[in-house]
Amino acid sequence: MSRFINLACAQMGPIARDDDRSTVVRRQIELLREAKSRGAEFVVFPELAFTTFFPRWVLDDPAEIDSFFEPEMPGPETRPLFEAASDLGIGFYIGYAELAQEDGRTRRFNTAIIVDARGRIVGKYRKVHLPGHAGPVEGRTSQHLEKRYFEPGNLGFPVWRTMGGVVGMCICNDRRWPETYRVMALQGAELVCVGYNTPDDHTGVFDFDQLTGFHHQLSLQAGAYQNATWIAAAAKAGCEEGSNMIGLSMIVAPSGQIVAMASTTGDELISAKCDFDMGTLYKRTIFDFARHREPSQYGLIVERKGPVVEV
Amino acid sequence: MSRFINLACAQMGPIARDDDRSTVVRRQIELLREAKSRGAEFVVFPELAFTTFFPRWVLDDPAEIDSFFEPEMPGPETRPLFEAASDLGIGFYIGYAELAQEDGRTRRFNTAIIVDARGRIVGKYRKVHLPGHAGPVEGRTSQHLEKRYFEPGNLGFPVWRTMGGVVGMCICNDRRWPETYRVMALQGAELVCVGYNTPDDHTGVFDFDQLTGFHHQLSLQAGAYQNATWIAAAAKAGCEEGSNMIGLSMIVAPSGQIVAMASTTGDELISAKCDFDMGTLYKRTIFDFARHREPSQYGLIVERKGPVVEV
Repeated sequence: MSRFINLACAQMGPIARDDDRSTVVRRQIELLREAKSRGAEFVVFPELAFTTFFPRWVLDDPAEIDSFFEPEMPGPETRPLFEAASDLGIGFYIGYAELAQEDGRTRRFNTAIIVDARGRIVGKYRKVHLPGHAGPVEGRTSQHLEKRYFEPGNLGFPVWRTMGGVVGMCICNDRRWPETYRVMALQGAELVCVGYNTPDDHTGVFDFDQLTGFHHQLSLQAGAYQNATWIAAAAKAGCEEGSNMIGLSMIVAPSGQIVAMASTTGDELISAKCDFDMGTLYKRTIFDFARHREPSQYGLIVERKGPVVEV
Repeated sequence: MSRFINLACAQMGPIARDDDRSTVVRRQIELLREAKSRGAEFVVFPELAFTTFFPRWVLDDPAEIDSFFEPEMPGPETRPLFEAASDLGIGFYIGYAELAQEDGRTRRFNTAIIVDARGRIVGKYRKVHLPGHAGPVEGRTSQHLEKRYFEPGNLGFPVWRTMGGVVGMCICNDRRWPETYRVMALQGAELVCVGYNTPDDHTGVFDFDQLTGFHHQLSLQAGAYQNATWIAAAAKAGCEEGSNMIGLSMIVAPSGQIVAMASTTGDELISAKCDFDMGTLYKRTIFDFARHREPSQYGLIVERKGPVVEV
């Protein structure tokens, strides 16, 4: 049995601090058109895809901070993307900074949505694993202040039945944490969409930063294999406001094999014909969770946040 | 700060069904001597290292089954290994089939122990993730009947302070499950020892079996990186009783980099000088669990064994 989907990742090159959303959306629509010409049915865009990656700066002016957030989705400037996708009959995943009014207060999340081929938002996810710091770290050229600008996501890791399969989402740093994929796999995920912005100095330790591309790839390949799921990951890439962002957008099969990969750090579309059923044989053999997992031994994973050394 | 250990993996070529333990132990002692000549302080031997990998056969005769198990460790035939290691001042990890008398009955586990440089057993682990089946699968040349011969381990995933670091263990198939490493990392593991027997037809699905070496490597590299721990993995390798076992014994750094790897499928010693403190910088930055993990979102990992698709 096969259930094919023609899947694409729309990597985006740098977005300048002063670029307005309309300019960015025009680039996205161009990528959608290319996706259409290559038969793609679903396109994954990056994290925070409508603006530059602003958490690299210490911003204090509330109006300036808010200028990077979306109080509604779609809004006046982003609606053309939804309309173009719907006209082309393409579904998509995209990330943005969400300004929400919830529990009687203003809240900020690093958010992604899935929009189906008719332009309807079918799912929303808010980034759980916020990397970096709440305040500036001395000596760093670029900061990584997601903990300053966002709250951790409060929607869990849900999955949705859409585009012919069971689809989940995560965002950027989430992809390094095996718990992310596992929680979705335990709900039957067949495809996990990931948008990301990863600067090449993301840990601030050169020995490790030189391996940033390898770590990105390793996390995706392991997540795909160990959970028998497809992963489609789209980067914001290139030198953005002085920060070098890795590209390496890729589509990874449930075997862990990379079936498509970007080779530039600019706007670039990659695509692959993916069989949602490819994971099924893994799920019946080596990764038949119901036969092989032993949750009674996993308690510490939820009981502890950080390590406790008792020996 | 650095805390170095000179670490080795003693890969073992095939062991025939009729090989007696004394013959096998002589090979192991030879590997220990090579380890000593290369300055190694700790040696990782394979899973079920004293006999052939008997779960490939359907055995019914209780006496024959018991002949592959160790009612005591060390026993008369295995004691020379302990003595040789102690004489050389080398610690080791080794796997064996354990026949235990517990809870008023005979129980069988796939077990590994850590023995310190003075020949004392400091830790015992019983394999949690038993792969394969409880009964024969039609059409397979080699069976994989661990669920027939063993109970799942009942000792959790403990760690021990030994050899200058915090050391944990797992066995073979455990290495494919991210939960394995995570539970040990949450106790501060700095080195995880793994012995394994992996035949090149381990899933019985050719598309996947051709990737067996890749999947082995991917699981170890991701486990090391995502938990900022060293992993030392030792194979039983080569054509054993008609079954081709992958070699690929390797030592993986907390960066996910492979720092030593076997290039044969026979008896082969690999070694590397490893700094227990290498993981520390990861644990202070990208993988500072106490700052970045979000256990409140991981509930399903312990609440569910198999997947439940509710969408």
